[in-house]
Amino acid sequence: MTLIAGTVPTVFETVESEVRSYCRAWPTVFERATGSRLYDEHGRPFLDFFAGAGSLNYGHNNPVLKRPLLDYLGSDGITHGLDMSTTAKRSFLETFRSAVLEPRGLPYKVMFPGPTGTNAVEAALKLARKVTGRKTVVSFTNAFHGMSLGSLALTGNAGKRAGAGVPLSHTTQMPFDHYLGGRTPDFLWFERLLEDSGSGLDHPAAVIVETVQGEGGVNVARAEWLRGLADLCRRRDMLLIVDDIQMGCGRTGDFFSFEEAGITPDVVTLSKSISGYGLPMSLCLFRDELDVWEPGEHNGTFRGNNPAFVTATAALDAYWRDTTLRDRTLRRSAAVGAALGELGPDCSARGRGLVWGLEFADGERARAVCRRAFDLGLLVETSGPRDEVVKLLPPLTVTDDELDEGLGILARAVRHTA
Amino acid sequence: MTLIAGTVPTVFETVESEVRSYCRAWPTVFERATGSRLYDEHGRPFLDFFAGAGSLNYGHNNPVLKRPLLDYLGSDGITHGLDMSTTAKRSFLETFRSAVLEPRGLPYKVMFPGPTGTNAVEAALKLARKVTGRKTVVSFTNAFHGMSLGSLALTGNAGKRAGAGVPLSHTTQMPFDHYLGGRTPDFLWFERLLEDSGSGLDHPAAVIVETVQGEGGVNVARAEWLRGLADLCRRRDMLLIVDDIQMGCGRTGDFFSFEEAGITPDVVTLSKSISGYGLPMSLCLFRDELDVWEPGEHNGTFRGNNPAFVTATAALDAYWRDTTLRDRTLRRSAAVGAALGELGPDCSARGRGLVWGLEFADGERARAVCRRAFDLGLLVETSGPRDEVVKLLPPLTVTDDELDEGLGILARAVRHTA
Amino acid sequence: MTLIAGTVPTVFETVESEVRSYCRAWPTVFERATGSRLYDEHGRPFLDFFAGAGSLNYGHNNPVLKRPLLDYLGSDGITHGLDMSTTAKRSFLETFRSAVLEPRGLPYKVMFPGPTGTNAVEAALKLARKVTGRKTVVSFTNAFHGMSLGSLALTGNAGKRAGAGVPLSHTTQMPFDHYLGGRTPDFLWFERLLEDSGSGLDHPAAVIVETVQGEGGVNVARAEWLRGLADLCRRRDMLLIVDDIQMGCGRTGDFFSFEEAGITPDVVTLSKSISGYGLPMSLCLFRDELDVWEPGEHNGTFRGNNPAFVTATAALDAYWRDTTLRDRTLRRSAAVGAALGELGPDCSARGRGLVWGLEFADGERARAVCRRAFDLGLLVETSGPRDEVVKLLPPLTVTDDELDEGLGILARAVRHTA
Amino acid sequence: MTLIAGTVPTVFETVESEVRSYCRAWPTVFERATGSRLYDEHGRPFLDFFAGAGSLNYGHNNPVLKRPLLDYLGSDGITHGLDMSTTAKRSFLETFRSAVLEPRGLPYKVMFPGPTGTNAVEAALKLARKVTGRKTVVSFTNAFHGMSLGSLALTGNAGKRAGAGVPLSHTTQMPFDHYLGGRTPDFLWFERLLEDSGSGLDHPAAVIVETVQGEGGVNVARAEWLRGLADLCRRRDMLLIVDDIQMGCGRTGDFFSFEEAGITPDVVTLSKSISGYGLPMSLCLFRDELDVWEPGEHNGTFRGNNPAFVTATAALDAYWRDTTLRDRTLRRSAAVGAALGELGPDCSARGRGLVWGLEFADGERARAVCRRAFDLGLLVETSGPRDEVVKLLPPLTVTDDELDEGLGILARAVRHTA
Repeated sequence: MTLIAGTVPTVFETVESEVRSYCRAWPTVFERATGSRLYDEHGRPFLDFFAGAGSLNYGHNNPVLKRPLLDYLGSDGITHGLDMSTTAKRSFLETFRSAVLEPRGLPYKVMFPGPTGTNAVEAALKLARKVTGRKTVVSFTNAFHGMSLGSLALTGNAGKRAGAGVPLSHTTQMPFDHYLGGRTPDFLWFERLLEDSGSGLDHPAAVIVETVQGEGGVNVARAEWLRGLADLCRRRDMLLIVDDIQMGCGRTGDFFSFEEAGITPDVVTLSKSISGYGLPMSLCLFRDELDVWEPGEHNGTFRGNNPAFVTATAALDAYWRDTTLRDRTLRRSAAVGAALGELGPDCSARGRGLVWGLEFADGERARAVCRRAFDLGLLVETSGPRDEVVKLLPPLTVTDDELDEGLGILARAVRHTA
Repeated sequence: MTLIAGTVPTVFETVESEVRSYCRAWPTVFERATGSRLYDEHGRPFLDFFAGAGSLNYGHNNPVLKRPLLDYLGSDGITHGLDMSTTAKRSFLETFRSAVLEPRGLPYKVMFPGPTGTNAVEAALKLARKVTGRKTVVSFTNAFHGMSLGSLALTGNAGKRAGAGVPLSHTTQMPFDHYLGGRTPDFLWFERLLEDSGSGLDHPAAVIVETVQGEGGVNVARAEWLRGLADLCRRRDMLLIVDDIQMGCGRTGDFFSFEEAGITPDVVTLSKSISGYGLPMSLCLFRDELDVWEPGEHNGTFRGNNPAFVTATAALDAYWRDTTLRDRTLRRSAAVGAALGELGPDCSARGRGLVWGLEFADGERARAVCRRAFDLGLLVETSGPRDEVVKLLPPLTVTDDELDEGLGILARAVRHTA
Repeated sequence: MTLIAGTVPTVFETVESEVRSYCRAWPTVFERATGSRLYDEHGRPFLDFFAGAGSLNYGHNNPVLKRPLLDYLGSDGITHGLDMSTTAKRSFLETFRSAVLEPRGLPYKVMFPGPTGTNAVEAALKLARKVTGRKTVVSFTNAFHGMSLGSLALTGNAGKRAGAGVPLSHTTQMPFDHYLGGRTPDFLWFERLLEDSGSGLDHPAAVIVETVQGEGGVNVARAEWLRGLADLCRRRDMLLIVDDIQMGCGRTGDFFSFEEAGITPDVVTLSKSISGYGLPMSLCLFRDELDVWEPGEHNGTFRGNNPAFVTATAALDAYWRDTTLRDRTLRRSAAVGAALGELGPDCSARGRGLVWGLEFADGERARAVCRRAFDLGLLVETSGPRDEVVKLLPPLTVTDDELDEGLGILARAVRHTA
Repeated sequence: MTLIAGTVPTVFETVESEVRSYCRAWPTVFERATGSRLYDEHGRPFLDFFAGAGSLNYGHNNPVLKRPLLDYLGSDGITHGLDMSTTAKRSFLETFRSAVLEPRGLPYKVMFPGPTGTNAVEAALKLARKVTGRKTVVSFTNAFHGMSLGSLALTGNAGKRAGAGVPLSHTTQMPFDHYLGGRTPDFLWFERLLEDSGSGLDHPAAVIVETVQGEGGVNVARAEWLRGLADLCRRRDMLLIVDDIQMGCGRTGDFFSFEEAGITPDVVTLSKSISGYGLPMSLCLFRDELDVWEPGEHNGTFRGNNPAFVTATAALDAYWRDTTLRDRTLRRSAAVGAALGELGPDCSARGRGLVWGLEFADGERARAVCRRAFDLGLLVETSGPRDEVVKLLPPLTVTDDELDEGLGILARAVRHTA
């Protein structure tokens, strides 16, 4: 605990653990929020281009979701439901089927594995290992899949891995798209390992991939690369798991980030924005024929967070019955890309939909940009192995004016820190 | 999917995964709930002696918590806060300090590790391994600590362990209290392993224990045994972690289940009833000097579930500023024990506070009792390695009449299935 | 490297690694040996009650084995044979069958897994895991089974375990006979773990045991305990592996140390004295129906050390066609036990056949006894978790006079160090 | 056990385990051997181009080694010496220093880790992990380093890995030279993983490499690639271990196979031909400053196989005091390469010194070639992940006539099986 001389330490400093993180980057106390803006306890507004690390794709306290939530709670709907059947869960399942699965022809069963992303990933790993009878799962350089022990073994970040305190095993990393700078054909190394019985790679149960690596530095896989990966999985008898926890729910335009590539993963994990209101919820989706679970073989106390089912249903009804949101996201993607492209020369931009990264030479500069943006009223954060990438995740419901305003603040922050 | 001929399968049967479990034991669709009762969509009431597996110690939709929750959501309070400082989190920390920590003289820092119990356990394991630089963690026979890979390695249940699909390592099991039928002194085996450098036990980082094993069959550790364990940990330089996820928040009478034994664990995990309203939330508490985390070394998207902080604060204010609830729970404990004691001869009762187990000869009978209780309007479930124990977890706010009613139904269910 | 001032360091000190060990306890340079005596380069004789850690049961350069060895080498017999069929291997197999297996009714196949004990143990582990499809192998407190990674995971000694540099897994330790001081029924803990599906013990593939733990401090299992273990393995479907590397080949009287107990293990490992001449050789024996190996699935460059087959054959022919050696060993066992029993009060003796341990209060005293014995012309070494046990392993061919002489020196060493 | 109808099964078939392997490829019973020839019990000679898998570089029963061995055994020299100091070990250490280490300026300490190759590799792994405090060791595709659990984790072959029966961990495979067909710069992938803290590769303790992969299919690393690897290890703070068990002792020309590349590994393992006579012996060599072993921290019953020290000393004296053998091996290498190059078109040759591989389209053809060669009186075996490479390892002492004869038989075997 580092305190400034002469000040009285706050309860955050005296009682909350040193593990706290975002409160250090954004040193104020937040009180309320609507749409794309948070307000601190002194009423100061901040434009939010972080959106709960992608959990608030529809903005803060979106009234379209808030009304049904208040109604549900007000009428004493089931709050905590484990995996009992409830009317709220039924509505969600029916809506998810009719608004998401059926229009896309996706043959998935829906599992509620517990309300966080890492619960969904742990469930996906268990299922892949059970179905195949194998142990090794392949992930990619700079992947991030969560902080519990199974998910952490898939994660690239050395600091987070070291936090495990035990060796992480039964996983192998392969190069993500662009990782080797285009100096080698896609999947050359991976395929050689698979085809050669002397390679030392135990035949994997599954491959898990993010189509855009958010924590890893906004690394965008090409659709062609994703198709190559899906093809490799099919030919080499490995399950393909797409971790769409951060990039799903419209972040890249389509509801699922893999739709653009035209692939159908065997397993998909969703969380973050699936409830739409920032409430804890996650899903694990898988092909019908993979549904070999015994009842209760994976469970979790909060897997039936019914208020989240209510807002999730409202969000699907409001935003995924037509392509309005999707089309707007794709249009804005082009605009954001163009705007960021002009911020050079000491940074370069990359992204898809409304997730964009601005890469600087090092983490020091990127952190300085974020600090300056905070001072100017914009919330953005860094990512990447050396924190060298400023990551933009505005709500998909951001207005044109807000988008312009945020990009303008960002441009100033870049200039001020040059 | 097993369907009855001639019926139209429901969306639960066609879309939800086979992993669903409680909905099979309680085959109806629930719609709303208040206090100790759930109601299905046809308006049929059920007395709830399961309480969200211990997540609803204050009952369903308790108005004392509901009002501040609706006010908070209505005023657009921060919903999703990561680990940003918020006014809601500040209120919770201040209340937790003044109502829980200070009156008990507990020197704990508070960590928000993600909103589920297994997140808290995974964080506790990481911290214990980081602080000590060791890897082995000792748990007990019939322990249950969660379903992600780190927590699962601590869990005794063979079926759940097998679900991991990979070997579970860096853990060792020791006999829980009563496990060896009193035919050996407490900790004889554990202490011999620790004192003998040829025993093959790598020096443990920590010991994790439930004071009452809920999933394991309502196995109650004696206060004397817990004191012996705390003493062993101190003498042999191991951290003591009490997993109070199911038994904390007043379930056994005191706020923490270990208070009766007069011990102070190094690390405590809390979840389930800490939010008081069934909303996902968990805490990891540890001695100040163990707070060696780097910022963000453990994290999670939903670790700042601010609506849960609001209900948690209200619950602490309403129930833990004095000893009313505690005293009533202890009084009722005696009454429940007496009533269950009369149910024999084909079952035996054990418990503490308002967690009680009724052990039958086998799982078949215990499951039959639960099914019959459901038909009679009471929700109870089995636990134990062979499902042989009917577990009672009524809300702590249950009325005397409801308690009598539930125990009466249970008695009938036992008789009907004899 | 610690050198005495003014002396010229030897090539052992300047070139050989610091890992060298016995040369520190016995600081001279040995040149030749016959029977029970070694001679250093100055011609000084030492009576050898260590016998190559049990590898020289028939003494040094026993002429009964030496003649066929010189003949074989002189006639250009195959030296290095991998697992080719050779006339020397055929003779050994035929002799082992007729002198060892058939008279005892043992239904074993014979595997040559590589010439060291740890090779045999690694092979036994692989086979047990392959046959059962399970992973966990149970060993006992203070066990020693070798230094390669698979065997080391079975070993109790903390220092040796730490040397692995990686966590040792897929093994669990149980209490050896007498370990809990008789305060608990035999196998109470082990059997409870096996019968309880909530115990956290993954069903073991096998149990591996030494009937007398040599490195562990000459801990002698009772025949009754061994029978209980064999019965437990049978009832609970676990393979029983007896590691007879140090205690086989007549060390305890019978050829196999488990014969006294009347049990038939599923797998037996032999090494050390099987060649009879100190030449590297080991065997893994197993029931015919367990012989599920694929050709070459386990191998090793030196598994066909044919000169060792020649001496092994000669040793079996000379010593195991009748019970002369066995009977003499058992008679002497009583004499040694009686003599050691008179050495008190600051030590206590235990043993079987011609392996005996003399336990002192601590390692310092036991090491002092060994140092003094060396000065007086007797080679003995310590064992046990704290080096507190002086271990006696005279050649089985020791004469009565040599035995008296050695025990006399030992008695003096004990007195001199009191 | 498959028996031919009407024949009496041999003791090999009835008593020896099914794991036996070479005896199936070469179905006769061998009796004696001299120089490059083995003779079966019917006196039929076979030219040996396998040389004990590289353990008999100086031929069978070489009289230059045989004389001192018989003298030593005849004079009752120490046979089994653990790590006691003996005159035979002193002679070996002095000779190894003066004939091998000093002329090459190699700063190595010498460890006797047990008499087999896998003992030496296990010791090297322990030391690398102890010195660095890290766990991961990098090996290469198609590597072979032994069959005990630590070494097996480094090995590429899927069948051998599966034999472990437990997951193999703490190792990672990288592409060996030529593995990716020249379509990617050397070490591109390995270096990216090391430089990127988000790559998921835990910083390795060490890299272990064979300069020519014998079991892997006679894959020859270029000197330039080896230098690049040594440079990478230096820059990235990883120990470089060269496993010279099969390729050392002159097999490629120089005493060590890495001399040609001009590199100095941190650790070197030697076995197979180090005793020169086919007797079990191995060494682990390492830089003086890495000699951090505690006395006895790694040990083994047969680490002091003194007869092997005697033949090893004689072999060094006879063959490594000048460059005669080395120069002849290099000259012959060219001749063998030229002769094999003419065997096409359905095979291609590669090699170095006197280790050569002849690659066919598949294992079926390669095995047919070996079988036919056996019928014609030549012993050769297959290697490679699909057994598709016929491997030639003639004794270095083979005469010109024998070399011509063997290559002639091989050519015929290739033609006969076309």
